[in-house]
Amino acid sequence: MSSDTDIYKHQNFGNHLGIGEKAALLIVDFVNGFDDPDQFGGGNVSEACDNTVPLLAVCRDLNLTIAHTRVVLAEDGSDDNIMAIKVPALKTLTEHAECSQIVDRLTPRPGEIVVRKRVPSAFFGTDLAANFTMRRIDSVLVTGCTTSGCVRASALDAMCWGFRPIIVTDCVGDRAVGPHEANLFDLKQKYAELMTRDEIISELTSRQARTVE
Amino acid sequence: MSSDTDIYKHQNFGNHLGIGEKAALLIVDFVNGFDDPDQFGGGNVSEACDNTVPLLAVCRDLNLTIAHTRVVLAEDGSDDNIMAIKVPALKTLTEHAECSQIVDRLTPRPGEIVVRKRVPSAFFGTDLAANFTMRRIDSVLVTGCTTSGCVRASALDAMCWGFRPIIVTDCVGDRAVGPHEANLFDLKQKYAELMTRDEIISELTSRQARTVE
Amino acid sequence: MSSDTDIYKHQNFGNHLGIGEKAALLIVDFVNGFDDPDQFGGGNVSEACDNTVPLLAVCRDLNLTIAHTRVVLAEDGSDDNIMAIKVPALKTLTEHAECSQIVDRLTPRPGEIVVRKRVPSAFFGTDLAANFTMRRIDSVLVTGCTTSGCVRASALDAMCWGFRPIIVTDCVGDRAVGPHEANLFDLKQKYAELMTRDEIISELTSRQARTVE
Amino acid sequence: MSSDTDIYKHQNFGNHLGIGEKAALLIVDFVNGFDDPDQFGGGNVSEACDNTVPLLAVCRDLNLTIAHTRVVLAEDGSDDNIMAIKVPALKTLTEHAECSQIVDRLTPRPGEIVVRKRVPSAFFGTDLAANFTMRRIDSVLVTGCTTSGCVRASALDAMCWGFRPIIVTDCVGDRAVGPHEANLFDLKQKYAELMTRDEIISELTSRQARTVE
Repeated sequence: MSSDTDIYKHQNFGNHLGIGEKAALLIVDFVNGFDDPDQFGGGNVSEACDNTVPLLAVCRDLNLTIAHTRVVLAEDGSDDNIMAIKVPALKTLTEHAECSQIVDRLTPRPGEIVVRKRVPSAFFGTDLAANFTMRRIDSVLVTGCTTSGCVRASALDAMCWGFRPIIVTDCVGDRAVGPHEANLFDLKQKYAELMTRDEIISELTSRQARTVE
Repeated sequence: MSSDTDIYKHQNFGNHLGIGEKAALLIVDFVNGFDDPDQFGGGNVSEACDNTVPLLAVCRDLNLTIAHTRVVLAEDGSDDNIMAIKVPALKTLTEHAECSQIVDRLTPRPGEIVVRKRVPSAFFGTDLAANFTMRRIDSVLVTGCTTSGCVRASALDAMCWGFRPIIVTDCVGDRAVGPHEANLFDLKQKYAELMTRDEIISELTSRQARTVE
Repeated sequence: MSSDTDIYKHQNFGNHLGIGEKAALLIVDFVNGFDDPDQFGGGNVSEACDNTVPLLAVCRDLNLTIAHTRVVLAEDGSDDNIMAIKVPALKTLTEHAECSQIVDRLTPRPGEIVVRKRVPSAFFGTDLAANFTMRRIDSVLVTGCTTSGCVRASALDAMCWGFRPIIVTDCVGDRAVGPHEANLFDLKQKYAELMTRDEIISELTSRQARTVE
Repeated sequence: MSSDTDIYKHQNFGNHLGIGEKAALLIVDFVNGFDDPDQFGGGNVSEACDNTVPLLAVCRDLNLTIAHTRVVLAEDGSDDNIMAIKVPALKTLTEHAECSQIVDRLTPRPGEIVVRKRVPSAFFGTDLAANFTMRRIDSVLVTGCTTSGCVRASALDAMCWGFRPIIVTDCVGDRAVGPHEANLFDLKQKYAELMTRDEIISELTSRQARTVE
């Protein structure tokens, strides 16, 4: 996409946001059904999920606000929406279904936010933005799946709601590589900061060290 | 993207939505600055804008609700947001700037909705969803630019707010072809119906004919 | 409040909205804890709850969309909000607590919407507006408690989201009579239509009769 | 309302919120039409407006974020909403109408936020919450009119969005005294902190002094 990049650069897109003063970690839809290539997963989703484990550990050590999301639709169809027409398989993601449970390696701890949602964005039809605002969060480290779906939508809404979105590039995954790459491009040009997990860990821990000194 | 398409088909994505009972036409950001390759435009944006002219005429004849959007930021910077950090050139799009005026060939008529927005989605930070809801709109024909930015975000939010998004494929454009194609792929698989302008005109006018008979 | 009424009349407040083409029934927070004067109830709350039983039966017969709300906060405090600081007792309203269950006489049936919320309005931080919009609802019959709290907030947001709010005057209740009356006054002047249960039943059933003929 | 107060106290309502770490000043609808008893004003509205002048001066000195709101409807009726059916006189509040201009004694300075809205809350259908969130505001000092309308709705939504609402009791006014008092009661019990202007000025300036030392 080198010529595409040139066009965006010429129009002065793609500037840096950086991490602000108080970051939260957002883990989007790392549930069993997306960790399974035969259901909603595949591609690099499970690898991104694995990569998120050490980041979650660091964020817990640093006492960051941590939020997990799950897609949960009612068993009786009462809250089926337009997306459930487009992608009917989503209707299997009910409260107690195995496929809608957060993967064992990222099980939420008491006090961590767990958001139930029915559309791509973690912020739509939920009070997550209000919860972050009350805590004076200003930046959201976005991990999860899929890059071209719920990750992008959540990062976009984070930006709209006044939070700096930081995409953790090796902790987001998608069932297909084309959309994964294309959406990282869009996110980088227009909505978010892109950083690797280790860049983020390095920055967060070095800030912490300066605070403690 | 044939193998990508196979993955999505296997997981039962990409079902049809169709046009519902009452459609509105949404024209996203066809303003002078996006019609100009030296500012925010280029690629197939101006062509998409040209293609929208006959669709607008038909929708006016059929008395559909019509909504136009503009990006408008305050001259004094009081409402600068995260996106204005990422893409500083947006700050030139002020109320009276030439670049933020809707193009002459699509000038709104009295009674058509004109939405001022500061983020990609026509629905975020605006009352457009409420306006459509009051009118009992259930489907939104989405035209405008850019496909990978405000068109996608507006279509996604339309879906989230309970409206069926119909992307008018030859009336949406982007400054670069890669993101244009990649985002049409995502929209088709997950969020929207994709139809050409002539398919839509044909369906709307044949419905109208049946009603009149 | 006769002189207050005069002021509002002089400024042309308080016009009629009427019921539109497609109404939904919204039952706000009729849960055990609000049916109990020793917890969040008292005043005319339980009477309003009793009065709602026949209305619910009629709305079910007429196949109206029916939505119930519950206040539900996480047991681990992860979604405590500003309101939980103001009114700490709300934190007892957890998913499985007896006090947060909908009263037996209004138990939701499969297919009826059940909204979990953490603030007064049924529409804030939920996707209820989107759900209603998708169903082309244009009017919301509001019952529940308390008049000065969640009923008013839900009616106000219904109006904001483009739905005509109809307060069912004998199916809304409050723990104290002063706020009950004062809020009905505000709702009547500025935001909603006020009708008794029997007026609504009469109008809905006579419309239905005309449709069947 | 002493017995009403007892009921609320018994149920543990009405706890204190206090001013958080970073407050913004919100001035709701102090426009000419509400400063005029023959249009939308009367009662103690103009007095509340007068009282706000010194508070605005202090907040400017302290470099607080300041936001003003105006009700603005399109001249062509394209964005008329349910409230405009209920209160048709609101339709006179167009962009350039004298009645919709902010009063001379509170004219916004460059850099102060000016929000156009069409419903009671300053936060509904606007991006004010996002703007405050980006600035890490955690408390909103609410002044303006009317207490029973746009002030209450804005304070309620501030709370919902994660900001502590502080009602400046002598800087909010209403056309009629009954609703003014009744709504202050509700706000105190359920949603907001109530403080006088001088209490707030004293607290803000003493904090500032401690910071400077």
